[in-house]
Amino acid sequence: MGRRIAILLSGRGSNFLAIYENILRGKLDADICAVISDRSKAPGLLKAKELGLPSFFVSFKDRAKGEEETARIIEERGADLICLAGFMRILSANFVRRFKGKILNIHPSLLPSFPGLDAQKQAFEYGVKYSGCTVHFVDEGVDSGPIVKQAIVKVFDDDTPQKLAERILREEHKIYSEAIKLVLDNQYVIEGRRVLFKKK
Amino acid sequence: MGRRIAILLSGRGSNFLAIYENILRGKLDADICAVISDRSKAPGLLKAKELGLPSFFVSFKDRAKGEEETARIIEERGADLICLAGFMRILSANFVRRFKGKILNIHPSLLPSFPGLDAQKQAFEYGVKYSGCTVHFVDEGVDSGPIVKQAIVKVFDDDTPQKLAERILREEHKIYSEAIKLVLDNQYVIEGRRVLFKKK
Repeated sequence: MGRRIAILLSGRGSNFLAIYENILRGKLDADICAVISDRSKAPGLLKAKELGLPSFFVSFKDRAKGEEETARIIEERGADLICLAGFMRILSANFVRRFKGKILNIHPSLLPSFPGLDAQKQAFEYGVKYSGCTVHFVDEGVDSGPIVKQAIVKVFDDDTPQKLAERILREEHKIYSEAIKLVLDNQYVIEGRRVLFKKK
Repeated sequence: MGRRIAILLSGRGSNFLAIYENILRGKLDADICAVISDRSKAPGLLKAKELGLPSFFVSFKDRAKGEEETARIIEERGADLICLAGFMRILSANFVRRFKGKILNIHPSLLPSFPGLDAQKQAFEYGVKYSGCTVHFVDEGVDSGPIVKQAIVKVFDDDTPQKLAERILREEHKIYSEAIKLVLDNQYVIEGRRVLFKKK
């Protein structure tokens, strides 16, 4: 049986589309079994509908109810892995524990530097010479879970936060699918906080 | 007149020796005008003496007096730049202001991740996939000043904090001299916290 991933998004869903394309191209062996959004008009959700993927708007006006419905969809659809792709809500500790070790997120910085919002602008303004992106398991904190994969992006003297964000996004589109593959292949162990991959 | 650098160290001074060798090899056009240590038996200080460099032990039992004597030596020796190379004391805001923009430090992590002690072990245990080192101007905080140069070091699954520290150290030995050269060449501007280099 194929490996099934659910995607949660709030915006344009560019990482969702990159995952979708990597599946089409045979780079990632998985099915997208649900695209769930807390915003009914999120461009990523509309795109998922256009593509004929199982698409769900879930209201988070009441967070507990929103999470409950999200969990129900995920379980009904038989997702093996939940991938946050620009999902702009913090999931409760309850939700995270329910899907422990089954939720991935991507963050546009080299964590633990620059967690939270506007990570690319934070990095730019701090004056780091390298930034990047991080795929990590989601735990109860914000951008704090064990790291699966990172990529490096150089910051140039003549950069802008926007240009830097675009270059980071291109790396996100690559490493998220690679990280999903690593996790779905289930060939890893977690020692302390270190995610280590066994050679196949 | 040659550019003169003063070095402050507390330990073996491997970064001091790398700077010394880069000067010998013509990679860095500067003179080491003083090697100052807060430990009379620091191997780096003994090595400096062996090499015939102007070497000074300064007691920091009383920090204010220690800093005053250090400042006096630096000024008498006509240093253009002060390079901390494993100097295990926090310099006071007074001292930092007196030599504003004239003090560099090297730190074995990709700041702002993992400031403070045992940065390599911190990075290893956090589970980052990349770490590195950072040369930065010293300001009143701990490892918080504007960044001049960074280098990336990959963390391997079969790493140890010790092996990682050794690989980071090799990069430190390269980038510290490169950063010193950039600063001595005086072809930079600081915008906010960003240290930007003008093309010569």
